[in-house]
Amino acid sequence: MPSLKWPSPFPNGGSEKAMIVSLNEKANPAAVKRELVARGLWIASELRDGNGAVRQFSISPGSAAISVSDITSIEGVDVVTTSKSEHPLVDKQGPVVQVAGITFGGGNPVWMCGPCSVESEDQLKRAAERLASFGVPFLRGGAFKPRTSPYAFQGHGRVALGWLRKAADANGMRVVTEALSEGDVGTVSEHADMLQVGSRNMHNYALLKSIGATKKPVLLKRGMAATLEEWLLAGEYLLGAGAQAVVFCERGIRSFDDTTRNLLDLGAVAILSHVVHAPVIVDPSHGTGRRDLILPMGRAALAAGAAGLMIETHDNPGEAKSDGPQAIFLDQMGPLLKTLQNVGNSR
Amino acid sequence: MPSLKWPSPFPNGGSEKAMIVSLNEKANPAAVKRELVARGLWIASELRDGNGAVRQFSISPGSAAISVSDITSIEGVDVVTTSKSEHPLVDKQGPVVQVAGITFGGGNPVWMCGPCSVESEDQLKRAAERLASFGVPFLRGGAFKPRTSPYAFQGHGRVALGWLRKAADANGMRVVTEALSEGDVGTVSEHADMLQVGSRNMHNYALLKSIGATKKPVLLKRGMAATLEEWLLAGEYLLGAGAQAVVFCERGIRSFDDTTRNLLDLGAVAILSHVVHAPVIVDPSHGTGRRDLILPMGRAALAAGAAGLMIETHDNPGEAKSDGPQAIFLDQMGPLLKTLQNVGNSR
Amino acid sequence: MPSLKWPSPFPNGGSEKAMIVSLNEKANPAAVKRELVARGLWIASELRDGNGAVRQFSISPGSAAISVSDITSIEGVDVVTTSKSEHPLVDKQGPVVQVAGITFGGGNPVWMCGPCSVESEDQLKRAAERLASFGVPFLRGGAFKPRTSPYAFQGHGRVALGWLRKAADANGMRVVTEALSEGDVGTVSEHADMLQVGSRNMHNYALLKSIGATKKPVLLKRGMAATLEEWLLAGEYLLGAGAQAVVFCERGIRSFDDTTRNLLDLGAVAILSHVVHAPVIVDPSHGTGRRDLILPMGRAALAAGAAGLMIETHDNPGEAKSDGPQAIFLDQMGPLLKTLQNVGNSR
Amino acid sequence: MPSLKWPSPFPNGGSEKAMIVSLNEKANPAAVKRELVARGLWIASELRDGNGAVRQFSISPGSAAISVSDITSIEGVDVVTTSKSEHPLVDKQGPVVQVAGITFGGGNPVWMCGPCSVESEDQLKRAAERLASFGVPFLRGGAFKPRTSPYAFQGHGRVALGWLRKAADANGMRVVTEALSEGDVGTVSEHADMLQVGSRNMHNYALLKSIGATKKPVLLKRGMAATLEEWLLAGEYLLGAGAQAVVFCERGIRSFDDTTRNLLDLGAVAILSHVVHAPVIVDPSHGTGRRDLILPMGRAALAAGAAGLMIETHDNPGEAKSDGPQAIFLDQMGPLLKTLQNVGNSR
Repeated sequence: MPSLKWPSPFPNGGSEKAMIVSLNEKANPAAVKRELVARGLWIASELRDGNGAVRQFSISPGSAAISVSDITSIEGVDVVTTSKSEHPLVDKQGPVVQVAGITFGGGNPVWMCGPCSVESEDQLKRAAERLASFGVPFLRGGAFKPRTSPYAFQGHGRVALGWLRKAADANGMRVVTEALSEGDVGTVSEHADMLQVGSRNMHNYALLKSIGATKKPVLLKRGMAATLEEWLLAGEYLLGAGAQAVVFCERGIRSFDDTTRNLLDLGAVAILSHVVHAPVIVDPSHGTGRRDLILPMGRAALAAGAAGLMIETHDNPGEAKSDGPQAIFLDQMGPLLKTLQNVGNSR
Repeated sequence: MPSLKWPSPFPNGGSEKAMIVSLNEKANPAAVKRELVARGLWIASELRDGNGAVRQFSISPGSAAISVSDITSIEGVDVVTTSKSEHPLVDKQGPVVQVAGITFGGGNPVWMCGPCSVESEDQLKRAAERLASFGVPFLRGGAFKPRTSPYAFQGHGRVALGWLRKAADANGMRVVTEALSEGDVGTVSEHADMLQVGSRNMHNYALLKSIGATKKPVLLKRGMAATLEEWLLAGEYLLGAGAQAVVFCERGIRSFDDTTRNLLDLGAVAILSHVVHAPVIVDPSHGTGRRDLILPMGRAALAAGAAGLMIETHDNPGEAKSDGPQAIFLDQMGPLLKTLQNVGNSR
Repeated sequence: MPSLKWPSPFPNGGSEKAMIVSLNEKANPAAVKRELVARGLWIASELRDGNGAVRQFSISPGSAAISVSDITSIEGVDVVTTSKSEHPLVDKQGPVVQVAGITFGGGNPVWMCGPCSVESEDQLKRAAERLASFGVPFLRGGAFKPRTSPYAFQGHGRVALGWLRKAADANGMRVVTEALSEGDVGTVSEHADMLQVGSRNMHNYALLKSIGATKKPVLLKRGMAATLEEWLLAGEYLLGAGAQAVVFCERGIRSFDDTTRNLLDLGAVAILSHVVHAPVIVDPSHGTGRRDLILPMGRAALAAGAAGLMIETHDNPGEAKSDGPQAIFLDQMGPLLKTLQNVGNSR
Repeated sequence: MPSLKWPSPFPNGGSEKAMIVSLNEKANPAAVKRELVARGLWIASELRDGNGAVRQFSISPGSAAISVSDITSIEGVDVVTTSKSEHPLVDKQGPVVQVAGITFGGGNPVWMCGPCSVESEDQLKRAAERLASFGVPFLRGGAFKPRTSPYAFQGHGRVALGWLRKAADANGMRVVTEALSEGDVGTVSEHADMLQVGSRNMHNYALLKSIGATKKPVLLKRGMAATLEEWLLAGEYLLGAGAQAVVFCERGIRSFDDTTRNLLDLGAVAILSHVVHAPVIVDPSHGTGRRDLILPMGRAALAAGAAGLMIETHDNPGEAKSDGPQAIFLDQMGPLLKTLQNVGNSR
């Protein structure tokens, strides 16, 4: 008789870093092992005392989500110990959050669209009008740009924040934009509805504290080689410092294969969505670096459990000051979003 | 005016390893660059001669798929050079293949299900009956098991091949199973409709040649740290040796984060499906190692462009001789496949 | 006749990101290829025009360092194009720099030692006295600590800077310590002879600009998944903002195997030292996470070309507030450094 | 008082995959933790029962090597459990092995040199004469070549084995060469003193069993993304099948940075040499892919604990059928080996 119900196999809890199942003196280790495996748990190792007797099982952290009391009830189990979650505030926040009146994690996918860099007031005006007409609630755009080279365009800075705000207000949209420097957090906070922490700054704890202190909601991109645990702990920094809400954003990680610009880790999205129960969206633009893969990978992200998508758009990608090749033409956004909305609805 | 059509933005070609755009003497490098970017191409570097003049652009291999003649027609371009595809047979095979009467890549997703290891004749009989009743065309199961430890169960070997064949025949199913050793290729070939190359053997060229020589269709799993190019070249070994068809199977790659058992690279699936135009399926069982993520990641795989899924099942995972925690209970397979079929249909 | 001299096979130049060798009309492509290979260059791809003729060779970026004019002189070569270095200031700085009277890259290895975190005035006093007696010129210690968890010890902050300065001054040592926040850069700069950028902040461009603006010398740790090019560009940010000098520090990168805490990339050290000609030291404490591997890996780092080592020490690692397991006991430092000095001398 | 002696801080044991320290009822968890940290152990997690009490500590596998009885003697510790080593035969083999009269791991570094591919009888004759004159005991050369592309040169096969044997015999050298196919193992075994398992075949268990069955000594290269544990288990396959001895060979692993051809993991060499106590050599030719880094990285490998080096040589690298750019000119080998020998002697 299967112990996991279907089609909702995701009990809560389950993000333990470690779990040890200790046996009592009468236990039959092989029998306990069978029960653990049947519940979807990987035995990382059998632990033996100095006499070679199996005394404990160490459970692999990536194992299925089941409750500790389920395991304790197995015959032969003495005690089950686990590590305490290091991110209680993220756990407490749960999977559904409200940002400026928009619900993340409520079933309806949330779109965040706009140019990579804010380039001119006029550009933003045109973008916001079109995007609003497609029902996009969040206008994105970089006023401050983190660039690998000091000689690359670094963004128009503070003036661009005003353009963002104005274009959004004129079209009933919200603004999400990145703060790069602790010195700019105040100004960004005045103009944006949601502050973005970029991938390169996920481990920048001074910035996280500073952004959290604004009490605003935050979009937290995953660092390019951050483990899930590190990502969740960065969210804990934000919430601990006062952030109203944290939405996680997977945007691709570093890999040995450069066929795509980054490697979009949708397994991480599934874990956050279905096991950790945290709100998570996906950025397929950075995740693939290819305009022609945004549709299939956006669709896949929603299917894996993403609560929304961030997509870069440009009315003329050839003129884009950054990341043009991965920007969708504004003219393509309508049909693209319609297709993606259908995927969201059919989940 | 957008140069990429929507919603079919995938012109053929596009798997060049390298591309150099050389300028003619009258070219305005900045103007050419704008045109390239607008077409979705990443400029990997500007190449200058000894006098510091820009003479060429190197295009990043992971850029969008557009034809060389489109680029040559840009004003200021002298010549466009590309590297020759090193896998002409894979290119020629195209995205749709027939295996024992079943079409991969034709739109309808193909299921391959069964236990990780073949454990007994009775187990297979029960599995095949249930799976056939759900409309699963391929019965999978390991007769020979590649195990990291020499002390782990290595499979029942040749006798298990007979059980597979018998169970499949009794239920109108096809057999797909792995050959580990050149010495077993003949026997496996006699019993199976499709031979599987496991992840650990993707770089085992002696085995690839031996399997290709059977003229059978092959399921080729991606090596755990293989680049896409290496994977395609392994397919080229098989086709060059005579394989009737090669279907690629993404099953997760190695990563720095062990939260999931492997990292399922759906971007690679999108590239193979939409850019390279090769038939590719996904194994979410190995790709996540968690029973509870098979539904969302199976759904995501189909959304990204997979032509089918390989899913491990067991009627009693606690008794499984290998990989029990990632096996779906047979009782769960019916609703699981129904849900996945809907995703496949709505693509 | 070998074209590379021995034992000094490192001509200058050689850190090109890309190189294209174009053939003239009379060229024999195979003959040119042989000459390129003999000079230690990997042909990444043969580039062909629309008629299938080989027109260019693309050279792999990780190839041997030889001058462009050497290549241009090969018969059949028309023109050799390269990408412009994106880090001219790092290139100009060269391999030898002076920091507070100490020479990095001059042949004599430089030691930087002290506790991971500054824990008390008394602790530092004891450490500095012993370290100075061993001839260690730089006292290290974290006043501000970047911690993955917000609940871990974050350092004693500004007061610890005073303890560092005082302990160093009393023993004729220099202070190197990390600045985490733009807001603390001024204070750190007043107390330290050299500012450290930690691994987590290598991509934090706002901090790099702020630290560079102090005009102080900087120790720049490599990001945990940073490519060499990204690391050099971070150095370019610092020098461009005014840093007096930049010394690079390899401290291990992220890998799929957690047997050691990080993966110490000594090949990167060899490239920086022998090909890029930049000053680079190594931190074997973080690079291995194991006290018992600091000697062999410190020795290996010097052998690969490191200009010095940063080693964590503690008089009582069990009481250390951070990273105790990788700290060397103060009592072990004397013989350790004597052994390492011998390696440095025998290079 | 330091509990680790210096300069021999490597007690035996220490390659446990997992260790759990359970506390007795009177234990002070904080005090036990301090003692563990002082002994160089990383606490991976504190394990708590349902009431939140700390009952156990999980120790990180990459922690320092100390004996279980040392830990058990700490006040407050109830029992220490560990996982059983999965590679008892590798453990039993120990760090010193004899291969055809040559000692690996005895202090004197062992050289293995020769061309990447065996290209002609004459080439080998010239190489063996020179190499023997430099005191190189092992002649290497590929008769069967594993190539990523099916269209690349695959080696001269069986005839090349005869050339190898003859050239070695004429100069008092031993032959080490790779077997790719189970079908060739017998022939290779007849001609070689030591059989090589290539990186691509480390996970090819059928080949491992077949090679082990020859009872010959084996050189086992690390797979390009193999963990240390997987590598050791491949050695266990060989010894279990009958191999006379197994020498491990690090040749670089896959990484996100392609500046060097592979990433040479010398931390793994230090672990194998100083903690696991297994014989290990290094191949800096594949590990860097650059002729000009073979000296510094060969030196570093020996400093980290390597028992020898495998170096590719060619009398005319421009004519090499494979891997020419990383081959050392025969004329350079004399001074190179003299320099390296000095490093070996001074360890």
